[in-house]
Amino acid sequence: MRIGELSRRTGVPVPTIKYYVREGLLPQGELSSPNQAHYGEEHERRLRLIRALLEVGGLKVAAIAEVLDAVDDPGRPLHKVLGAATGRLAAEGGTDDDAEAAAAHTAVEQLIARRGWRTHGSNAAAEDLSRALAALYRVGHGEFVELLDEYADAAELVARSDLGYVSRRGAVEDLVESVVIGTVLGEAVFNAMRRLAHVDASARLYGEGGGEGS
Amino acid sequence: MRIGELSRRTGVPVPTIKYYVREGLLPQGELSSPNQAHYGEEHERRLRLIRALLEVGGLKVAAIAEVLDAVDDPGRPLHKVLGAATGRLAAEGGTDDDAEAAAAHTAVEQLIARRGWRTHGSNAAAEDLSRALAALYRVGHGEFVELLDEYADAAELVARSDLGYVSRRGAVEDLVESVVIGTVLGEAVFNAMRRLAHVDASARLYGEGGGEGS
Repeated sequence: MRIGELSRRTGVPVPTIKYYVREGLLPQGELSSPNQAHYGEEHERRLRLIRALLEVGGLKVAAIAEVLDAVDDPGRPLHKVLGAATGRLAAEGGTDDDAEAAAAHTAVEQLIARRGWRTHGSNAAAEDLSRALAALYRVGHGEFVELLDEYADAAELVARSDLGYVSRRGAVEDLVESVVIGTVLGEAVFNAMRRLAHVDASARLYGEGGGEGS
Repeated sequence: MRIGELSRRTGVPVPTIKYYVREGLLPQGELSSPNQAHYGEEHERRLRLIRALLEVGGLKVAAIAEVLDAVDDPGRPLHKVLGAATGRLAAEGGTDDDAEAAAAHTAVEQLIARRGWRTHGSNAAAEDLSRALAALYRVGHGEFVELLDEYADAAELVARSDLGYVSRRGAVEDLVESVVIGTVLGEAVFNAMRRLAHVDASARLYGEGGGEGS
């Protein structure tokens, strides 16, 4: 199909498609003449993925480029790239070697050991977790660590569910894309659902008026 | 304390503190002379909260200003403000009235009815959830809706745990701040933990080499 048709089918304006091609997010279409490029279904699919990561995942164009590079190159450590792309945690300033950071790191190490998780405290996600806990300690919410096992129960449920989904999808070329979608969009799904469950839980706890967000 | 001491205790540079005061995030200190302002413990606490929302929650300064306005004014609908501040979902373009959006909306309405959640489909979080599901439909991952109840089980676990934490904290002036911290930092905690649980689940499923992110 020509670029106009690709634009019509995906709702993405032609100049935006051209921008994605220039930025390396979308492969160039096959040139049928010097001014005419032909786009296929794989372009349409990739374009929809870009829009989903952008609009729902909240990823920036540069982060999407990195994630797509990892999708296209099986040698790249996808988990790490995804962690960096979706993680909104920024280690700024010199606050990462204080007592709170040390306590948070210990809490994460203990959690991993207690759960028997096959990973360790220097994993990128474990470091993000440490950073979030350290921030909680610093704002005087250190008791939040008492919730970690309840959070871990929920995280295990979601992870089992995600992995089951990915393995059901089967096709290998689909697998990596499924992991990307599951991580980024699944996160958006879970975050929205958690806020929804908050509304319900507070309505039950404080009466119907608790659903002020509705 | 003087601004230098406040800076030393929180690790936030003096010009940054002045910027937060100008932007209305932090109240002006009490002036003891025309060039000397005195800051108290409430300033220190507020400053730590700002940094946590910024560094761990990934919120922008404008979003933090809105959240803090809602914290300071009990009349503001906090759930709504928090949803807008933490939601990375942007409804762009005219794609929100297509078949996928309608199917997603129906799936969310059915989920809410099935779970008996005391909320409805026009709640801000429900709309975010619809948008995420519509994006999944558009990228050919419509079967993801089969996971919704497993996600909902996990979301209920986390919400119950959060609400229990907030109600244990007691003090009313503390309550709103706890909700903010629980929503924003709790989200960062859960997202990191979910990625960690993925590493473990894929190590179990695909063998030790599955922990490529480590």
